[in-house]
Amino acid sequence: MPVIFISVSTPQFFLDEQIRAQLVVQKYGGTSVGTPERIKAVAENIAATVKRGHSVVVVVSAMGASTDELIDLADKISKNPPGREMDMLLTAGERISMALLCMALHELDVEAMSFTGSQAGIITDTSHGRAKIVEVRAKRLCEALEKNQVCVVAGFQGVSSSASVTTLGRGGSDTTAVALAAALKASACEIYTDVSGVYSADPRIVDKAKKLSNLSYDEMLEIAATGGRVLALRAVEFARNFGVPVHVRSSFSPETGTWIRDEESNMEDPVVSAVTHDTSEVKFTLERVPDEPGVAAKIFRALSDEKLNIDMIVQNISTDGLTDISFTVPADERIKTIAVLEDEAFETGSMGYQSNENVGRISVVGAGMKSNPGVAATMFEVLASQDINIQMISTSSIRISVVVAKEDVERGVVALHSAYGLDSE
Amino acid sequence: MPVIFISVSTPQFFLDEQIRAQLVVQKYGGTSVGTPERIKAVAENIAATVKRGHSVVVVVSAMGASTDELIDLADKISKNPPGREMDMLLTAGERISMALLCMALHELDVEAMSFTGSQAGIITDTSHGRAKIVEVRAKRLCEALEKNQVCVVAGFQGVSSSASVTTLGRGGSDTTAVALAAALKASACEIYTDVSGVYSADPRIVDKAKKLSNLSYDEMLEIAATGGRVLALRAVEFARNFGVPVHVRSSFSPETGTWIRDEESNMEDPVVSAVTHDTSEVKFTLERVPDEPGVAAKIFRALSDEKLNIDMIVQNISTDGLTDISFTVPADERIKTIAVLEDEAFETGSMGYQSNENVGRISVVGAGMKSNPGVAATMFEVLASQDINIQMISTSSIRISVVVAKEDVERGVVALHSAYGLDSE
Repeated sequence: MPVIFISVSTPQFFLDEQIRAQLVVQKYGGTSVGTPERIKAVAENIAATVKRGHSVVVVVSAMGASTDELIDLADKISKNPPGREMDMLLTAGERISMALLCMALHELDVEAMSFTGSQAGIITDTSHGRAKIVEVRAKRLCEALEKNQVCVVAGFQGVSSSASVTTLGRGGSDTTAVALAAALKASACEIYTDVSGVYSADPRIVDKAKKLSNLSYDEMLEIAATGGRVLALRAVEFARNFGVPVHVRSSFSPETGTWIRDEESNMEDPVVSAVTHDTSEVKFTLERVPDEPGVAAKIFRALSDEKLNIDMIVQNISTDGLTDISFTVPADERIKTIAVLEDEAFETGSMGYQSNENVGRISVVGAGMKSNPGVAATMFEVLASQDINIQMISTSSIRISVVVAKEDVERGVVALHSAYGLDSE
Repeated sequence: MPVIFISVSTPQFFLDEQIRAQLVVQKYGGTSVGTPERIKAVAENIAATVKRGHSVVVVVSAMGASTDELIDLADKISKNPPGREMDMLLTAGERISMALLCMALHELDVEAMSFTGSQAGIITDTSHGRAKIVEVRAKRLCEALEKNQVCVVAGFQGVSSSASVTTLGRGGSDTTAVALAAALKASACEIYTDVSGVYSADPRIVDKAKKLSNLSYDEMLEIAATGGRVLALRAVEFARNFGVPVHVRSSFSPETGTWIRDEESNMEDPVVSAVTHDTSEVKFTLERVPDEPGVAAKIFRALSDEKLNIDMIVQNISTDGLTDISFTVPADERIKTIAVLEDEAFETGSMGYQSNENVGRISVVGAGMKSNPGVAATMFEVLASQDINIQMISTSSIRISVVVAKEDVERGVVALHSAYGLDSE
């Protein structure tokens, strides 16, 4: 899991304390602003929030599939476009949605102003396509908020230290929202989405999956990292690092969604909160790696230099001075990973590798696991009872993940969700 | 005709003299970059220019009808959107085309970098939707040019002194191109378009219209001001003020188009160079205006404060202390004009007004007119022979315009084009 280092400018200097106490950051995803009608509905929701006495900063994604359309356009011109130009292209999308949302707010007599990532002071490093926020200089937002204006900020984008436009990569708008909430010390960050919260499993697979009312940052991190698509991993890390309370809720209904915040763990924690899965990864196994200090470091440094998202890494003890190391990467990074391994193989002699696309991962996540050592045993028993063979195992203090054959994933998730008592009535 | 005040920063400080001598600014309109295939063709043209030893700054418009699509989207949300947000919205278009063009150039191994109006240093006033360029700070372009990079700049847009994104209004990309050519003291500004140059009349109406090889700035100004759509009026003013040689030519053919530059007028100037027309205006007549000093000033100040594009103004001598004043405005500014007149009418007592949409204007333009006093008489005779009634007349030293009924316009243009000997063989 990548570690993010963030410094956030001290906005106390700018923002009035009374405004801050009532400040909420709201993020609306692409589906929520997919049509002019939906944009109007979002504007109504914001207007209602303002009417309740809140100051509001809104973060918007690009409309519906518009980012995909831009990617298709680029693809017709170049198979390997320069990152700087790709970012210039993709940031057109939020520009459109935020301007339209401001117009809709003006129609409701709500004063609003749009801000690009750059104008909102989202300063990033220079990694085009997957830039990291290094600082938030929210001075212009503070000024607008003090004039009782709703600030509508383009998600997913920033400006680098060398004054180029950057994008934050997948889930970037969530990250923008949480980063602004942190920088402005907002009372909450609301993530509006097309589902009503975070579920105990993917409802498309487990029809008895239930909405979770509360999650700790750590649980949400594990859920996001292992397949829960509702909130981007980086946004959760950001929220945890700065203690931002996050509320994941539906754009289409006023009901309470899932709150993610710091909570004392206690005896009543459910042992397992959620069963997640992910079938978008590929498994690599490096064979006959010399079991010497520094070998793994060399390989994973080379992979990391290419900014590959290495996920589960498993190494077993060696028997004959050689060992096998397995790891997973997103399927769309398979080609780049192979390129690195082919290169690295030169230097480590006899080493070979295998890749397997027919894999999926199942994870069980729960803060209560810490004090319940039987969770892993239960998991393995349940999978065995379903005749599911386990290829890799990896654990954290509140998560157990296994890699299995892709076709076994759904069956495993359903069985585990039931076995851990998560099925709704 | 509006006067533009421009200061251009002194780029001599930055740009190497050898680069400047070979520098051309090329502008490609929306049709030229309307599809990925056309973008690739434009890239080929730029690459060929680079291969001939030139440094190149490219100004692009938004792809095809994309700006209209954005306007439609806005229209679904608000009938009166805030100018700031409209500009934020519309500037998304060039972002897309310039990023794609850079990608296409990279595919041809031509180093290229895209620049928004703001990044290119196009500083404007704060009039959203029709901002005026007040300064060009082309430092970043100079740096890129010195690294042998092609600079691809978003046309039509800039950044205001209050750091908001602005657009330059109709024909804005032409203006961007000429302003950059002026600031960088480029050897020429090439305007690529879907016609092969400036014609002696609209070829859709006059099938014997011919391409003009050379025009003076003044002629081009009059042609642009009276209906020649090929080059924006403001761009021509800019070019004249800074002595930028402009070459209007076809995107689809290498043939020479029309050069617009400073030329000594001489005896061989054709008396009339072009016959233009415009049916997009409405005529207003203010009736019974008190013929006293300051009355006209008051009315036209009020109209000007609303940024209405008043065009022909005609006032005749008064007979009884009252006079009539007529003027034309673009048809889409009719409602705003009426609002001003209704308001102003309060203060000027008995005054009323009429508006007439069924009008069109025909103009004849030519540098040779100065020394040929018979041009007007010929024009009126030709129109009379066609039974066309003249409603208004206005002249400059190199142009005569008349307002006639809309249905008489085409017939008048064809007859005049022939009468002045402009028909091609």
